[in-house]
Amino acid sequence: MNYRLVSRFLGILSVFFGIFMLFSLPWAYSFLGKHTDPKVLPSVLVSPVVVQDPSFERAGFNALVLSSMVCLMLGATLMTFGRGVKVQLFRREAMAIVGLSWFLATFLGALPFWLSGTIRGPSVRVFTGSQLGQSGASATVLVADTNWLHWQAWNRVQGEFTGEQIELLQLLVANNATGVSGYRIERELGNPQYESVFAELREMPELKPWLIAPGDGVYAPADRIGNYRLRWARMTWADCLFESQSGFSTTGATVLSDLEDPNLVPHCILFWRSSSHFLGGLGIIVLFVAVLGHGSAGKALMRAEMPGPSKEGSTERMQHTAWIFAVMYTGLNVILTVILWLMGMTWFDAICHAFGTMATGGFSTYNASLGHFESPLIQYTVTVFMVLAGTNFTLLYFLVMLKPMALVKDVEWQTYIGIIFVTTAVIIGMGMFSNDPGFDTFGMSLQYSLFQVVSVVTTTGYGTNDFDQWNQLSRLLLLLIMFIGGCAGSTGGGMKVIRHLLFAKILRLEVLKAYRPRLVKPLILGQQIIDDPAMRRGIPVYFCFVIGIFTASWIAVVALEPDSTWGVDPTNKLIDSASSIAATLHNIGPGLGTVGASTNYGHFTSHSKCLFTVLMMLGRLEIYPILVLAFPSFWRSR
Amino acid sequence: MNYRLVSRFLGILSVFFGIFMLFSLPWAYSFLGKHTDPKVLPSVLVSPVVVQDPSFERAGFNALVLSSMVCLMLGATLMTFGRGVKVQLFRREAMAIVGLSWFLATFLGALPFWLSGTIRGPSVRVFTGSQLGQSGASATVLVADTNWLHWQAWNRVQGEFTGEQIELLQLLVANNATGVSGYRIERELGNPQYESVFAELREMPELKPWLIAPGDGVYAPADRIGNYRLRWARMTWADCLFESQSGFSTTGATVLSDLEDPNLVPHCILFWRSSSHFLGGLGIIVLFVAVLGHGSAGKALMRAEMPGPSKEGSTERMQHTAWIFAVMYTGLNVILTVILWLMGMTWFDAICHAFGTMATGGFSTYNASLGHFESPLIQYTVTVFMVLAGTNFTLLYFLVMLKPMALVKDVEWQTYIGIIFVTTAVIIGMGMFSNDPGFDTFGMSLQYSLFQVVSVVTTTGYGTNDFDQWNQLSRLLLLLIMFIGGCAGSTGGGMKVIRHLLFAKILRLEVLKAYRPRLVKPLILGQQIIDDPAMRRGIPVYFCFVIGIFTASWIAVVALEPDSTWGVDPTNKLIDSASSIAATLHNIGPGLGTVGASTNYGHFTSHSKCLFTVLMMLGRLEIYPILVLAFPSFWRSR
Repeated sequence: MNYRLVSRFLGILSVFFGIFMLFSLPWAYSFLGKHTDPKVLPSVLVSPVVVQDPSFERAGFNALVLSSMVCLMLGATLMTFGRGVKVQLFRREAMAIVGLSWFLATFLGALPFWLSGTIRGPSVRVFTGSQLGQSGASATVLVADTNWLHWQAWNRVQGEFTGEQIELLQLLVANNATGVSGYRIERELGNPQYESVFAELREMPELKPWLIAPGDGVYAPADRIGNYRLRWARMTWADCLFESQSGFSTTGATVLSDLEDPNLVPHCILFWRSSSHFLGGLGIIVLFVAVLGHGSAGKALMRAEMPGPSKEGSTERMQHTAWIFAVMYTGLNVILTVILWLMGMTWFDAICHAFGTMATGGFSTYNASLGHFESPLIQYTVTVFMVLAGTNFTLLYFLVMLKPMALVKDVEWQTYIGIIFVTTAVIIGMGMFSNDPGFDTFGMSLQYSLFQVVSVVTTTGYGTNDFDQWNQLSRLLLLLIMFIGGCAGSTGGGMKVIRHLLFAKILRLEVLKAYRPRLVKPLILGQQIIDDPAMRRGIPVYFCFVIGIFTASWIAVVALEPDSTWGVDPTNKLIDSASSIAATLHNIGPGLGTVGASTNYGHFTSHSKCLFTVLMMLGRLEIYPILVLAFPSFWRSR
Repeated sequence: MNYRLVSRFLGILSVFFGIFMLFSLPWAYSFLGKHTDPKVLPSVLVSPVVVQDPSFERAGFNALVLSSMVCLMLGATLMTFGRGVKVQLFRREAMAIVGLSWFLATFLGALPFWLSGTIRGPSVRVFTGSQLGQSGASATVLVADTNWLHWQAWNRVQGEFTGEQIELLQLLVANNATGVSGYRIERELGNPQYESVFAELREMPELKPWLIAPGDGVYAPADRIGNYRLRWARMTWADCLFESQSGFSTTGATVLSDLEDPNLVPHCILFWRSSSHFLGGLGIIVLFVAVLGHGSAGKALMRAEMPGPSKEGSTERMQHTAWIFAVMYTGLNVILTVILWLMGMTWFDAICHAFGTMATGGFSTYNASLGHFESPLIQYTVTVFMVLAGTNFTLLYFLVMLKPMALVKDVEWQTYIGIIFVTTAVIIGMGMFSNDPGFDTFGMSLQYSLFQVVSVVTTTGYGTNDFDQWNQLSRLLLLLIMFIGGCAGSTGGGMKVIRHLLFAKILRLEVLKAYRPRLVKPLILGQQIIDDPAMRRGIPVYFCFVIGIFTASWIAVVALEPDSTWGVDPTNKLIDSASSIAATLHNIGPGLGTVGASTNYGHFTSHSKCLFTVLMMLGRLEIYPILVLAFPSFWRSR
């Protein structure tokens, strides 16, 4: 292993990061970082959050400057170590650079979140009687964290609460899921659906202190009242790494429960969060697709007619491809930004959502994701650009060159569109048949279903409707298409359509072989014969890796998370955990149940968050570049 | 394809069946077919069941005689067609015989169930007001079928019931899950836990007519009272095929909800049901393992040191192996029968449970499965024999030859025992930590966990404790070990331990290849080098087939079953359906939730039952012999 070469590349990356972070700085000035629909801040804010200067976000600004300096210094050090080395990329070095750059990015990208003290969400702690005299953290018995009741020691505490009280607590926190914070509760008090619940809650002596009647104007009167303490929780290191990796891997899963209040999450940090999508997408297109070359799914998966000066996959051709892709990717981001701005978004929202779309990421600047904009125009526009982002960039290049037939005739692209079409049709049919929420008219059904299917297939993860409330077949289909993903050579994650296509063909050939062992039949894709024997083994092996990693992680998450997070009947734990792994391993973002469209990953334990961080990386880099790092023989000098 | 040869073999099978069916006849005489713990029949029986002659089960007897005649006649016809053909088995013919024999067995085995009019369970039909004047079936709006509320048209009906009424109805039927029938409700009325529920139910005017106060002595006063009708449902064709296939594939999944009342399920039919396990296990050992030879997982999986006159896999050696295996299998059945009889079972129960154990089937003669016998001695005995049944028969042969080291040194067997040990340890630990029901002492925990783990790994499916009430990690582990299964060359189903072992080794070699593409490293199992390149592709392909079939069936079951079967919050539908597919595809039997240890498959629609029937066959014959039957080119003459 040529360590100095690896060091040099990582150094360049680090410096690039340091510079790019500076682009987030201007948004600290509130007249720039403005939401399209600014939130009306309540007059009195929740206790431990210090109200910031409304015109300038100092904490976020300082954090970004400091992080940028760390990047630049680290970059300089790494580059100094790798100075003067001859650039000659072998397979091992390329894999090491791609794999390690994602590790480095995750760490560097987490710095602004950590240094700015960004608030993850509200945390409710309930103390038992005997622990009232003790100090906070260690005496915690019952923690309602972020947006879900997190019964840390359910068995010990359940004797102390009646079933009714526990149910109401759960309901409170569950209803409180989307926006989540003190004033959210207050806002919902106008809603007749919740009114009776809160009325009952207010009558419970233990809960009274931290629930406020409408119009009281105060939230948690003090840090701790009676048995309860409501406080804002800062992001932990696990949160920061998770959020950062979620950005770079273009997953879009979040631990933040309120994005709209700049006192909790500064706008400049929000911009950095969306920037990480842009950088991640660029990294995939440049480092992974173009440099690691045929990493996507064997040589055959990169279209043979790839534009470039030479056909031999030389360094020059590689650089040429990388440049073309980078320019196209940036161009599409600019175009979408302008379109969204024309449709009425502020520049801040337009840029962030363009980043989230073109990288197939899914970070939004609103709690309700893209559903915040109730404009069908915006939703359909984003749908179209998500489809483009999930398309092979080589084919997009032909489209730009005004050769649309190359796109239309591509078998992978046809399958990709076919999957979107069929799944949407089934979900519309089942949704209207089962009277799913939002499926009142065909127009609304089409808008919601198409958006959601495209969002999941392309592994973006934006939402416009809470698909967790849909019928079970629709939920299952959304869960399963998570395993498909976009086209090879796109910014979309997942296993890629081409692999599934080849997979089906390989399995068919294997059945024929079962009774004709001497049969020699080539693998045909479109009109092209694929005569790569390595791939005929490689594709099933890749599927097996995905299943193996999925299963091991499933056991881990179910073991690490307490059953009590899922309440009194925790049978949903299994499917919810499975969906959280699918949603991170395939870089989608939202899953089912506790990680559904209206909730987030904040309630998981730090261990699980770290696991998810690794899964996002594994999925994004298609397993091998991360897995090889764990083999000592990979590092030994050749 | 040599059709006449195939016909001849199927004819022999059919005649064999016809003769074997006669062995079930004696048990129609009640003094023979006696339960160890005979049920005390209530004085007045539920309406449409005609009380049979208590000393002789005429309906079951006649059905068996008739079925036997059908078998003999069909066998004679098939043999006549195949008369005089030269016996020379090629791969295709062998596959066709194995595949078709399971189809034939399923059909023939279903005849006694169908002809005897065996009762699946109680069926409750609720009519809406406007439909009271109409005739039964077509006017059905709400059907509580077998043991679960089966809301056939939930959306249409929900306006007519209050939430409370629906909940109570669900509770009634859910509580009624294990034994299920009119008197079961009565029996539970003594239970304080249910008393309050039933008291409330009796106060509801709509439910009053078909619920009876304790001691009333009548069940459903007439076929239809007011809005409700309680009746006994006969097995449909789908039920019969499911039950028959479940027997021959040694799955042990059932649609029957009360096994203990001979007026519902005659004892002679119950004996035939268990006999199908014996025949299925014999078929696996003789037809599949010995005749199709290396069908289990490539040549390497049959131990090379296989006893026999010749090493070349000749017909003679094949026959020799088949005879040895058949004798060993029958011998183990006899030994276990005698042991169980010595432990206090009647001959009827002892034989049936020995059949269920040695075939790794799981059909019991009691509603509470093996948990009915509260004797730890019986449970541990069955545990030991289940472990033997899941062991490669070649190794058992060495054990019989007093060469135990061959068994102990076998890598697959070591892994198999290791899996049982580790899983049991985790389940004991988690179960005691979470206070799972039954895990009060270490002794009880060990007894329940070990039994359940062995029962699932060997794909038997007996139960002694409702594992669905255990913590979520334990549930997940039980679900996942369903995918492992027993050793190759045993009667156990599933994917087999050896495949998982090779799978792990192959994946490891693939990661090494990712950065050393020219690496040539052999696959090593134990001290043996496996140099079969076909297997290195074959194992991952097999895993992919299982995943592919699993996923397609998952979508099908979720689409075919109405969400309303899972009640008001149907989110468990996904995991329950997944477990039902795993439990049938891998021939275990019970799964999670609605197909859990205390419930059965009776509530599924006929379409799903047919799908499960095919899945059981696919799993049992390790996919290929069934899959090839669907390819036209398989049938074309060479």
